[in-house]
Amino acid sequence: MVSLIGYYTTQFGELWDRSLSDLIKEAIFGVLRNTGLEKSQIDAIFFGNMLAGILENNLHSPSKIAEIMGVNIPIFRAESACASGGVAFHLAKNYLEANSNKTVLVIGAEKMTDYSPEETTSALASAASGEEQEAGLTFPGLYAMMANYYLEKYDSTEEDLAYVSYKNHYHGSLNEKAQFRKIVSVEQVLKSPYVAYPLKVLDCCAASDGASAVILTNHNAVKKKSKYSVNVLASEVATDTISLKERKRLDEVLATKFAADKAFLNSKINRKKINVAEVHDCFSIAEVLALEDLGFWKKGEGGKKTKELSTIHGSNGDLIVNTSGGLKAAGHPVGATGIKQIGEIYLQLTVQATNRQVKNARYGLAHNVGGSGGTAVVTILGV
Amino acid sequence: MVSLIGYYTTQFGELWDRSLSDLIKEAIFGVLRNTGLEKSQIDAIFFGNMLAGILENNLHSPSKIAEIMGVNIPIFRAESACASGGVAFHLAKNYLEANSNKTVLVIGAEKMTDYSPEETTSALASAASGEEQEAGLTFPGLYAMMANYYLEKYDSTEEDLAYVSYKNHYHGSLNEKAQFRKIVSVEQVLKSPYVAYPLKVLDCCAASDGASAVILTNHNAVKKKSKYSVNVLASEVATDTISLKERKRLDEVLATKFAADKAFLNSKINRKKINVAEVHDCFSIAEVLALEDLGFWKKGEGGKKTKELSTIHGSNGDLIVNTSGGLKAAGHPVGATGIKQIGEIYLQLTVQATNRQVKNARYGLAHNVGGSGGTAVVTILGV
Repeated sequence: MVSLIGYYTTQFGELWDRSLSDLIKEAIFGVLRNTGLEKSQIDAIFFGNMLAGILENNLHSPSKIAEIMGVNIPIFRAESACASGGVAFHLAKNYLEANSNKTVLVIGAEKMTDYSPEETTSALASAASGEEQEAGLTFPGLYAMMANYYLEKYDSTEEDLAYVSYKNHYHGSLNEKAQFRKIVSVEQVLKSPYVAYPLKVLDCCAASDGASAVILTNHNAVKKKSKYSVNVLASEVATDTISLKERKRLDEVLATKFAADKAFLNSKINRKKINVAEVHDCFSIAEVLALEDLGFWKKGEGGKKTKELSTIHGSNGDLIVNTSGGLKAAGHPVGATGIKQIGEIYLQLTVQATNRQVKNARYGLAHNVGGSGGTAVVTILGV
Repeated sequence: MVSLIGYYTTQFGELWDRSLSDLIKEAIFGVLRNTGLEKSQIDAIFFGNMLAGILENNLHSPSKIAEIMGVNIPIFRAESACASGGVAFHLAKNYLEANSNKTVLVIGAEKMTDYSPEETTSALASAASGEEQEAGLTFPGLYAMMANYYLEKYDSTEEDLAYVSYKNHYHGSLNEKAQFRKIVSVEQVLKSPYVAYPLKVLDCCAASDGASAVILTNHNAVKKKSKYSVNVLASEVATDTISLKERKRLDEVLATKFAADKAFLNSKINRKKINVAEVHDCFSIAEVLALEDLGFWKKGEGGKKTKELSTIHGSNGDLIVNTSGGLKAAGHPVGATGIKQIGEIYLQLTVQATNRQVKNARYGLAHNVGGSGGTAVVTILGV
């Protein structure tokens, strides 16, 4: 069994005084410090990053990390758009399943705010199909198409979606590493300007800088010395067409369904046992689709359920969602997000989540999506 | 034991009428056809690519491949500069070691020739350190520094290096998939214009388009049906500093040494047993360094050894090197190279190498490098 024994995340936000290397360095040495491990105890590193190539002509990060850390070990970079972090984690788990008595570091990092909005938006569009890019479709536009279809089909409203942002901003207010710590009301969300109808500014996550790291091990001696440890019960990856037009339905993300079904099957954990989840809320509609596609809610009831606020911290709901603030309020440094999600679940399961701690959390799920759903990663952790 | 059961490569060259997707599609369906497998028999795909993000704003290739192939399976993109293909292969082997009865496809692809030389050169420089980029150092410049140091230290000559290009162009003339099939003389190499002293045009590989794919399996039923199969005895990855200035020596590539030592140790194969090798000859000096750092030649004797031409097809040397034509003559579509190298060894060991077949080849090695040596992958195959 693979154990997750430590987590560190930098502040998420507009970190104009920090380079990508600075953030990577802070996260690597931060997680080593948190676990009390020496760098010589790390056997391999898995790194999730999306945009450094396009935005700063910066590739070959495995070698750059080797230099930062002063090691010659195997280092791997995974890129699956905004699912890069989750995919890096999956490959790391895989590495441990193939090699006994090893300890690996998984890090995700992204630097997005040193560029103009046009540059960042164009770079992010690289995760869509060429045809979608040529048509001028950016991600708010793609998710707006899904939102319009969903709201129309299931008689949901923009107000329903606004509750996602309200909840996640409330959670963000409890997370000192979050980019946005300001509570916003449903009314403020509804009054914010449209980005792509029906999605408004406060339905959309922002561009962020940040890096997050975890350490995984199957080394018994390392496990025994760990103060805070959780089991990695499943990590599954599925893919789907890059183009929305090639999909049969716009109201579901098939890759999420496939990855979730496999994760629940392999971990033998019933969905009802999950107490906390971090789901990929790049847009408010995405959280609604995620909770349905993961099998927590029935298809079409998400709008109503969202408005009930059963997933907010402090409610008596069985499943609390996005206590980190989600992508919406914690921020979305795309390569880091998948690791931050898993890290937040780790904090909850090891009772280190301070003022946003969910009581008696024993099982948690992280859900990381690339693009408009072309890749999905579902990870299940338990104590 | 992981078996390699099939290989396909597209033509390498300036393929202006083919897109990256076209090349990926041809390689995927080509290798499926060569192995007689259906796409439904593939459990996962590993993809090596370096430049699509920078050159054509094209990321999230896992989802793009899912659409091309019509599948929802896990797909992973590895990026380690020019070692992306070799690293993808390593991760695929790892996946099979973690999962029984699976069959995976590994593909590398790159599209480099639709852009101006300035654009391609700048994109390739992303595999160097930021400081090296700012100093205007491109890869010919970085390898020229290594070449100058080596020639001076070991009293070698430009003529010694020219024999690498002569040999590899001769091999390329025997490979119908090679970009350059023209034989060049040592004199022609020496008379070609300098790119970065002492490296001349004919010491340097070109920019290329191409895609190569192999299929790996640990599924017994699939193995049994395979007509041509070899064993993957080792695949090891090591890293080093990105910056030349951070290295202790300029006359060796430490990552190659680490990866090779581990590969020979783990496979329990003696170096002397290797009959054929594909080594990373992005520049003539790189082949000399590789054969020394892999442990086939003593440090410093490479210049003299090269001139003896003991590694050319048809000689009675024990080790024949770069029968594909190497990066120099076969071409270097960077993400594809690592897979093409492994594929060439596969062709040799399964006696499918036609007019460039090496007699009684039982063990082979592929050596793939990222950047100026920040990443190295060493793979050993045997029958």
